[in-house]
Amino acid sequence: MRILLSNDDGFDAPGLQALVGALQACGEITIVAPVSEQSAVGHAITIHDPLKVQERWRDGVLIGYAVHGTPADCVKLALCSLLPQPPDVLFSGINHGANLGTDIIYSGTVSAATEGTLLGIPSIAISLDTYERNAHFDSAARAARMLLDLLPSLSLPAGTLLNVNVPNLPWEKIRGWRVTVQGKTKYVENYVERIDPRGNRYYWIAGTLVEQDECAYADYRTVKHGYISVTPLHFDVTNHACVEELRATLEPRLNPS
Amino acid sequence: MRILLSNDDGFDAPGLQALVGALQACGEITIVAPVSEQSAVGHAITIHDPLKVQERWRDGVLIGYAVHGTPADCVKLALCSLLPQPPDVLFSGINHGANLGTDIIYSGTVSAATEGTLLGIPSIAISLDTYERNAHFDSAARAARMLLDLLPSLSLPAGTLLNVNVPNLPWEKIRGWRVTVQGKTKYVENYVERIDPRGNRYYWIAGTLVEQDECAYADYRTVKHGYISVTPLHFDVTNHACVEELRATLEPRLNPS
Repeated sequence: MRILLSNDDGFDAPGLQALVGALQACGEITIVAPVSEQSAVGHAITIHDPLKVQERWRDGVLIGYAVHGTPADCVKLALCSLLPQPPDVLFSGINHGANLGTDIIYSGTVSAATEGTLLGIPSIAISLDTYERNAHFDSAARAARMLLDLLPSLSLPAGTLLNVNVPNLPWEKIRGWRVTVQGKTKYVENYVERIDPRGNRYYWIAGTLVEQDECAYADYRTVKHGYISVTPLHFDVTNHACVEELRATLEPRLNPS
Repeated sequence: MRILLSNDDGFDAPGLQALVGALQACGEITIVAPVSEQSAVGHAITIHDPLKVQERWRDGVLIGYAVHGTPADCVKLALCSLLPQPPDVLFSGINHGANLGTDIIYSGTVSAATEGTLLGIPSIAISLDTYERNAHFDSAARAARMLLDLLPSLSLPAGTLLNVNVPNLPWEKIRGWRVTVQGKTKYVENYVERIDPRGNRYYWIAGTLVEQDECAYADYRTVKHGYISVTPLHFDVTNHACVEELRATLEPRLNPS
């Protein structure tokens, strides 16, 4: 089995190394990940600049490539140029920080898995719900291994990836697994406003989570209750529920009769 | 009426100026847009760096702010810090190039409108289907004005934005308006691989569109047939159609009985 790993925390991030440790017994691993942290880049890709790539070797063996680009760049480049054969599966992570609710649209971790899915590879994004240094990457790595073992029997629909979030707990304290939906989280955004040493004003984003979804199956809520959440995602962003009504109200008014 | 304009082509782009020309009779316009082109940045936001902002004046009047950031940064900063009052509507565009099908997930133009929607402002992304210099921004600007006039009667659901794409035709050649869904477009991606003057390999993304959706209401197809497409988008990326089946197959195997 060929396994492609990527992330948005960068090639040398501990979460990625934990994934390597958990999955290396299952097949041949190649890492294609950003040189440096790329959090909150969303689904950005680099089109107006070249991508520089560093080969990374360990003990005389090529273990992967560090790319001066975004997570989506890494996966696109891996599948279109760097890898001699397509992988059987892609894991993106383990992200140091959860990717839940509305935050999913900003997530580089999820975007790497989305790109894998777009290019036809079964893909899983996996994140650990903490920003603390004392992070239980071992729990998330164990979850990744369990999912990899189940993957052949899952038969995900085309164009669907799994977004997995793991509570920051020792394995024996995790309460179980739940299949969830993307929750609705809301922030009060604000910017710290300061003057730089040359007298120019600048802004720096802050922001506090103020609301979370009350739906029993919301990803955010599930992880806060100590369960691993698994959400199937796709990239159809049409609000299908309002297409018909919008058609009925808009087309007659805009089109000449 | 207070109108906020943004885009991903940058503050001085001709598409944005065309929007100003079409909408200035309708209310008070403020522009908050990136200093430079930000195409394909997706929903990236800047969290680890400060945002620098330039005031822009014309004829002694403050017309807006040019931000060293992404389109999503611009809208967040506008609504959270720069504007004294929230706008009644946000337009993002007129993008020089269409945002249709799968390309929507990479679009900075759409991300600005998504961010407006997340922050509670009725938001419209508008793009012109051409990369040529000879672009009919006047047609797209006229479409924007027509939508602005209709907006109070549209009653879009919360969390839903409109993604509008206009064929690059003189107004009288446009065949009409259609409410559409996000189509499925597919690229054969490839990277040009070259050696730089210092002997290092680099890659540059190319890519050719090879497939388009055959659905009669797909956005891509509609625009190619000479109609203006209007697609309601939201940011729920759960694949709801497979949640139940995944729950039935996955939970019993992963949870201890």
